[in-house]
Amino acid sequence: MDSIRPDTNVIAPFGVSLAPPVIVAPQPSPAYSITLRMRVPRQPGSFARVARVIMDGGAILGAVDLVRIENGEVTRDITFQCSDAAHGEAVSGKVRALEGVEVDNVSDRTFLLHAGGKIEIQGRTRVKTRDELSMVYTPGVARVCTAIHEDPAKAWALTIKANTVAIVSDGSAVLGLGNIGPAAAMPVMEGKALLFKEFAGVDAFPLCVDSQDVDEIVRFVRMLAPTVGGVNLEDISAPRCFEIEQRLRDELDIPVFHDDQHGTAIAVLAALVNALRVVGKSVEDVRVVIVGAGAAGVATAEILLAEGIGELIVADVDGVLYAGRPGLDPVRARIAERTNPEGRRGRADDVIPGADVVIGLSGPRAISAAAVRRMAPDAIVFAMANPAPEVLPEEVALDVAIMATGRSDYPNQINNVLAFPGVFRGALAARASTINEQMKLAAAEAIAAVVGDHELRPDYIVPSVFNSEVVDAVARAVADAATMTGVARRELHAHQEWAERTAA
Amino acid sequence: MDSIRPDTNVIAPFGVSLAPPVIVAPQPSPAYSITLRMRVPRQPGSFARVARVIMDGGAILGAVDLVRIENGEVTRDITFQCSDAAHGEAVSGKVRALEGVEVDNVSDRTFLLHAGGKIEIQGRTRVKTRDELSMVYTPGVARVCTAIHEDPAKAWALTIKANTVAIVSDGSAVLGLGNIGPAAAMPVMEGKALLFKEFAGVDAFPLCVDSQDVDEIVRFVRMLAPTVGGVNLEDISAPRCFEIEQRLRDELDIPVFHDDQHGTAIAVLAALVNALRVVGKSVEDVRVVIVGAGAAGVATAEILLAEGIGELIVADVDGVLYAGRPGLDPVRARIAERTNPEGRRGRADDVIPGADVVIGLSGPRAISAAAVRRMAPDAIVFAMANPAPEVLPEEVALDVAIMATGRSDYPNQINNVLAFPGVFRGALAARASTINEQMKLAAAEAIAAVVGDHELRPDYIVPSVFNSEVVDAVARAVADAATMTGVARRELHAHQEWAERTAA
Repeated sequence: MDSIRPDTNVIAPFGVSLAPPVIVAPQPSPAYSITLRMRVPRQPGSFARVARVIMDGGAILGAVDLVRIENGEVTRDITFQCSDAAHGEAVSGKVRALEGVEVDNVSDRTFLLHAGGKIEIQGRTRVKTRDELSMVYTPGVARVCTAIHEDPAKAWALTIKANTVAIVSDGSAVLGLGNIGPAAAMPVMEGKALLFKEFAGVDAFPLCVDSQDVDEIVRFVRMLAPTVGGVNLEDISAPRCFEIEQRLRDELDIPVFHDDQHGTAIAVLAALVNALRVVGKSVEDVRVVIVGAGAAGVATAEILLAEGIGELIVADVDGVLYAGRPGLDPVRARIAERTNPEGRRGRADDVIPGADVVIGLSGPRAISAAAVRRMAPDAIVFAMANPAPEVLPEEVALDVAIMATGRSDYPNQINNVLAFPGVFRGALAARASTINEQMKLAAAEAIAAVVGDHELRPDYIVPSVFNSEVVDAVARAVADAATMTGVARRELHAHQEWAERTAA
Repeated sequence: MDSIRPDTNVIAPFGVSLAPPVIVAPQPSPAYSITLRMRVPRQPGSFARVARVIMDGGAILGAVDLVRIENGEVTRDITFQCSDAAHGEAVSGKVRALEGVEVDNVSDRTFLLHAGGKIEIQGRTRVKTRDELSMVYTPGVARVCTAIHEDPAKAWALTIKANTVAIVSDGSAVLGLGNIGPAAAMPVMEGKALLFKEFAGVDAFPLCVDSQDVDEIVRFVRMLAPTVGGVNLEDISAPRCFEIEQRLRDELDIPVFHDDQHGTAIAVLAALVNALRVVGKSVEDVRVVIVGAGAAGVATAEILLAEGIGELIVADVDGVLYAGRPGLDPVRARIAERTNPEGRRGRADDVIPGADVVIGLSGPRAISAAAVRRMAPDAIVFAMANPAPEVLPEEVALDVAIMATGRSDYPNQINNVLAFPGVFRGALAARASTINEQMKLAAAEAIAAVVGDHELRPDYIVPSVFNSEVVDAVARAVADAATMTGVARRELHAHQEWAERTAA
């Protein structure tokens, strides 16, 4: 486990690291929005003083809402963005200290959004009359049960199965926070469920399990399989995640997809395909170095091998992976055997010079700017650690052709929200029994293709996560690939299924 | 297991038995609604012929919708209720056989209502902008996770836990259908989730598990506990259900409630309290015979003992339970030790004469009319087997003071929909660590009290399941009882919590 520690800072491209972001200055973010309800005397200049204090404190002033005017006092809700919780408290304190200003309430918009949870169950039919009750419940429901009992395939048509995904986590590797356990992992899983519905119309429910034992997690997922059409594993630490996923894929006839691995790998490949289009290099010819051999690093190596990448070298905290390196677990040993054909040794920085592409799936400062400057011409660098990338764009921007990160405040944000909603939408639409490598490749190609030739630029290689074309394109590509590889259990004709359900 | 076979016909008061309802003639029900889309010539009398055939076939004509008039033909959707699937096919066949009538489509309304499942996930907040994404997901969500990691009690405020229940079934005793397995059980669990939301605003999700092993089910539920505020066990066969529930109650700090047992027991006690009000007898003085010692029978015996019932005798298919009876499992042995103080032997019909109350929680025809006719004056009979009761109301109506069943087509339907929504609503509102006997008693009393003294009549001892006062009354009573017995983890002041959420 220790050998992959740095990679736990990545997990997902939009993870958050607890490690201090050494150089990146914290900047105000909507994630730290504070709303103050305050009363000021009804006289000119009262509000201006407040606004001045907020802005001088380094916060970004947002919405200002008038609540009421009463007894010569004006009550307002003032929202501003800070860089972190301490910053928010500091600015709030300065406002409180202002003569004549009374702060009645301080609320944190992020916490407000999470109050009571972010998802709920909704009926797809009402039960207002005895007739309706007798159809959705007893006695009518017995006929539906009997129909499924006689023909189990009918569960796809007559229950929630066909549109439902379980999001399963043990809370062992949550974002960059590490092993915080199941209860504390719930907000992430609920957020994921929200995105599944919002982006793809998929009904996903979060299940944070109170065990980190591989056998128990495998058994848990196996037991819940009849209820769902797919399983999204999430934030489970390496190398346990590899064994859990593999065993479930072997045992179950529904897709099991560890998003930290494959969602990331798909999004990275999509970005790489487009980056290579920009610089005019072909996949077969480039030399790629992946820095990080955790969940995301291993899966990205796998998808690049499947894509037929020219030459691949993977490095972890102990240095370059090579066949026969002592201490490698089976998963990484298999990667080592299929990469690094020249058997190079040394640290990541030793193999980056001369490479066409470097992909950081590790932690802050894992890649030196000096090494990047010695890459091949038209170098491509993806530094995915979040919030502090492996190498800062500011340091190497002038030395490389294309730079991408997992952050939303630089160009080219590589985010696996681009992948997982459409991947499951497509797999469910095809009633796929698995998500195989061809389906992942198809998803990556589909994401890449959303950016047209006339739009493609060094600072625009991936579509926005809010580009609504993405999920449809990915879903269709994935469903088609499922059909072509023989894992679909349903022929798709009009490609309308997900659109209908999403629009509903 | 064999010794309790007859009881598996009950499970829930509104269960459906596979056993032939020997005497009860099947009657048309909305559960068997058929809609025919048909074309008839546009001329007087065309539709009248169709209506005549449907009514002569014994079906009940419902909605008639005009679809279009085209080329001298009228297209209509005609809905009618049948008594069962065969009846529906027979009537549809007669319509098809009519000269000049073309049936384009036959649809079954119950199946249509179940298509695609009956529930879905809904976001409680939108994600339309980058700012929203950064609050509900990374990076903002990391702060919420950290807050819960530092203080696990915050999971109640910042996740779905406080309003969420898991409905867990292994499909081993579904309605009266028996052991049909997890996939075929799903429509029932979805229906239950729908009722939880519709009646009480509780978010419940169904989990039908692919194992019938007691240890595995216990472990599964234990693992999912961090995600939810309560667990509703459903349709798990006796005696496994007793051990599963008891072990989970011992291990978990959230309520675990097997509805087939306790929901039924609460509804039965509510009805009994009111029936005794009608006939003017007191709980302490009456002699009660329960016929059936499965999940519902055992739980009903327990709640009657807790209520301080005068004298109780329980009988199963092998006859009356008495202390020391050979072959009793531990659960029934404990019931035997605390009932039947005179140590009577024989079959159920032998102990019914002279009793004040008989409660059937068994199967069709388990109670003889002759025995009922020899009960004490002002006899009370609850015959809960569904659809064919233990004794038919028609046979004994003139011999007893009060008759109730689990069916909606007789007066006094005792339905556990009266209990479970409010029980969980109240337990969640109080953040109760368990649902104890006092909370169940309070729920029963609250249901009974909804029927005012001026309304109370022999044929109106329980409120309608659609009476909106029931869930609030039950929830408040349960939450108060939780507080009084020291199992609440949250003080309730305004009793507004469930109303707010339900109304939202």
